[in-house]
Amino acid sequence: MFDTRYSTEIQGRIDQKTKPLGALGQLEKVAHQLALIQSQGKAQAVDKVTLEQPYVLVFAGDHGIAEEGVSIAPSAVTQQMVLNFLAGGAAVNCFCRANDVAIKVIDCGILLPIESESPLLVKQRLGERTGNLAIEPAMKPQQVQQGLEWGQSVVQAVINQGCDLIMFGEMGIGNTSSASALLAAVTGEPVERCVGLGTGVSSEQLEKKKRLVGQGIKRCHSNDPQTLLAELGGYEIVQMVGGFLAAAKQRTPILVDGFIVTVAALLATKIAPSCRDYLIFAHQSHETGHQIALEQLDAEPLLDLSLRLGEGTGAVLAVPLLRAAAEFYNNMASFAEAGVTV
Amino acid sequence: MFDTRYSTEIQGRIDQKTKPLGALGQLEKVAHQLALIQSQGKAQAVDKVTLEQPYVLVFAGDHGIAEEGVSIAPSAVTQQMVLNFLAGGAAVNCFCRANDVAIKVIDCGILLPIESESPLLVKQRLGERTGNLAIEPAMKPQQVQQGLEWGQSVVQAVINQGCDLIMFGEMGIGNTSSASALLAAVTGEPVERCVGLGTGVSSEQLEKKKRLVGQGIKRCHSNDPQTLLAELGGYEIVQMVGGFLAAAKQRTPILVDGFIVTVAALLATKIAPSCRDYLIFAHQSHETGHQIALEQLDAEPLLDLSLRLGEGTGAVLAVPLLRAAAEFYNNMASFAEAGVTV
Repeated sequence: MFDTRYSTEIQGRIDQKTKPLGALGQLEKVAHQLALIQSQGKAQAVDKVTLEQPYVLVFAGDHGIAEEGVSIAPSAVTQQMVLNFLAGGAAVNCFCRANDVAIKVIDCGILLPIESESPLLVKQRLGERTGNLAIEPAMKPQQVQQGLEWGQSVVQAVINQGCDLIMFGEMGIGNTSSASALLAAVTGEPVERCVGLGTGVSSEQLEKKKRLVGQGIKRCHSNDPQTLLAELGGYEIVQMVGGFLAAAKQRTPILVDGFIVTVAALLATKIAPSCRDYLIFAHQSHETGHQIALEQLDAEPLLDLSLRLGEGTGAVLAVPLLRAAAEFYNNMASFAEAGVTV
Repeated sequence: MFDTRYSTEIQGRIDQKTKPLGALGQLEKVAHQLALIQSQGKAQAVDKVTLEQPYVLVFAGDHGIAEEGVSIAPSAVTQQMVLNFLAGGAAVNCFCRANDVAIKVIDCGILLPIESESPLLVKQRLGERTGNLAIEPAMKPQQVQQGLEWGQSVVQAVINQGCDLIMFGEMGIGNTSSASALLAAVTGEPVERCVGLGTGVSSEQLEKKKRLVGQGIKRCHSNDPQTLLAELGGYEIVQMVGGFLAAAKQRTPILVDGFIVTVAALLATKIAPSCRDYLIFAHQSHETGHQIALEQLDAEPLLDLSLRLGEGTGAVLAVPLLRAAAEFYNNMASFAEAGVTV
């Protein structure tokens, strides 16, 4: 159970800072949530929020549906981009360097495995790619279980190493199709609202994508998350779901990236509703389904920069806002301390 | 003249990065603009953008109109908050620490002068407070000239010390009234649209504020920026206008904070239209007039965090986004470098 006992005390602390009530807007909510998370299991509210070691875990997997041509690139690009992550050349690497965030890359099952011995790479392959969700189950129930366990173990490992803020990113040609299908199936929203342009398909591809996703959903007669993951999931998505479960269990705040990661978060809250208390939302994607997922989670993201890349880029860009929230919670003067007489 | 000769070359560089075209949204525009600014006067487009030493200059001044009770706090709070800035206890100080930004505080004319010998404090007092703009000119034309000069000299001084990204903040009880009046007068927009809640006045105070601002504007029969500054300006606002002029002249990018700073930016572009090329907009304020000023400047801010504090907080919070943009421009792999075959 998430303990909200110290909520009033934390808010009182924020309200005594030298500023009009509420004048720091969303940063006040972030500071409140971080302080409440870090006060779990403590004898009193924390007076310092610590954010020493943020990590982004980028989960990569390939998708059977990609062979239908519903993406801007072929599946081979998934492996090429994983190599780019390992070499430090991708956007998420740049943002990690700029914002002092550590990165790991998880091969959850990409078409072409990677021989690299890079310390950044974690090999947790559930297969070489999922089944084509339009015509067959994406994976077996045992793969769902294994994926959830692996997702949990990789998150547990970085938390054991001192990680106190966790982010997930994803890479996988075809994975907006999978995320859209999962979203439609778990929420009951129409496919048309859940399927969007991804990184930028044509209007023809979009129509096909909607048709194929709709076809896949017809096989689903339950909204049990594990069942849906088996029918429609991605190897990277199921591992992220496991990751959310582990981070929440370890009372570690999670900064949630865009559409695909938010769908994984939504599925995790269906398995364990208390996950929600640990989620902070980074970036509002223009992908149509994202708004639906955010509404389901009653979430208001911090940024809207028109990003449509994935990789965890939105989350990593929001880290400095969390650090700023922590700094004002920890060190901003109160009216009494500053002798301000408002 | 702003030289756009290298624009295509810079865009080509951005488009070759390992991401779908345009997928980094607003950060691509920021990277483009920074690269173009730093290529001014060069023999070719820069291949590295540098952001080594960002500075925020917080300009403080008091306002005669404050005696009408159109603010949530009395004028004495301006000095108290200046002391808070010098002691490092205010929100802007916290965000400067979190984001590694240097700060200076300029006393442009606050009611009660400060005896401090703090190296952060710059004394450029145009008086002890402006005239009450509702009934009399805020200042004399000579004070406008002196204010523009002092604003220019303080910016020139930090640029001489190596500052390569400049921000302005402001503190002054009553200054949203002054900014609203300047906005209405310079744009011709109705007072009702230009006057807002400031840091949070009552609806009664809001009506009074609109009436007093409308009264002040009636004296203005020109939209010449200097004339308007004399009638309606604040000591901090006129010095910020001078600061914009100096930064643009020195080809230094300026990250623009919220409502009041944006009004100063708008006035600066009326004096020297080429200023606009150096402006990047940080935060969308909910203050009603801000949208008007942004439209006039054809500006799209990076953040919307519901801040209503001033002090330069919105600008300082956006600095990491500029660093992230620079890092991807400088070091993100191209398709060719990464062997990605999209």
